[in-house]
Amino acid sequence: MQNEAEKTNKVKVEINNEEYIIKGPETVEHIQLVASYVDEKIKQLSKAHPNLNTYRIAVLTALNITNEMLKLKQEYEEFLSLVDGEVKG
Amino acid sequence: MQNEAEKTNKVKVEINNEEYIIKGPETVEHIQLVASYVDEKIKQLSKAHPNLNTYRIAVLTALNITNEMLKLKQEYEEFLSLVDGEVKG
Repeated sequence: MQNEAEKTNKVKVEINNEEYIIKGPETVEHIQLVASYVDEKIKQLSKAHPNLNTYRIAVLTALNITNEMLKLKQEYEEFLSLVDGEVKG
Repeated sequence: MQNEAEKTNKVKVEINNEEYIIKGPETVEHIQLVASYVDEKIKQLSKAHPNLNTYRIAVLTALNITNEMLKLKQEYEEFLSLVDGEVKG
C-alpha cells in the first residue's frame, strides 16, 4: 500500500493563460487553490498596470503575496506569544 | 503633525538584479524584508531551473510563496479554533 505521506500529486494548472505542471505532496485541491490564487492576483495587477511587462507583474505579485504572508506570520507569532503568556501568567 | 496611519513609504529595492520602487504604508524595514525574501526565492529557483525563462521563474516563486501563505493561514485558523474550543469548553 502506498504511504500517503510520500505521495506526490501532479496537477496541470493555468496561470495567466499559460499552463504549468505542479508537483507536490499537497492535495490536488490545495494545489488548485494555490494556482487560482496566483492566477487571480496576476490578472488583477495586469489590469491595474497594463504598461508593465509580464515578468515585472509576476514579481510584483510575488511581493504582494510575500507581504501578506509575512504580516500573517507576525500576527500568528504575536498571538502565540500572547497565549503562551496567558498559560504562564 | 502627520498622521502615522496615513504615511506612505517609498522604497527602492532590487529583485533579481532589477530595480523596483515599492510604495506602501508598511515600514521601510518591512518592505526591505519582503523584497529580500522574494529576491532570494527567485534566485534559488533560477539556479535550480536554469532553462526556465524569468517570467515562469517569477510565477513559480509566487506559487511557492502562496503555498506557504495558505498553509500558514490554515494552521493559524486551526489553532484559533482550538483556542476557541478551550475557552468555550
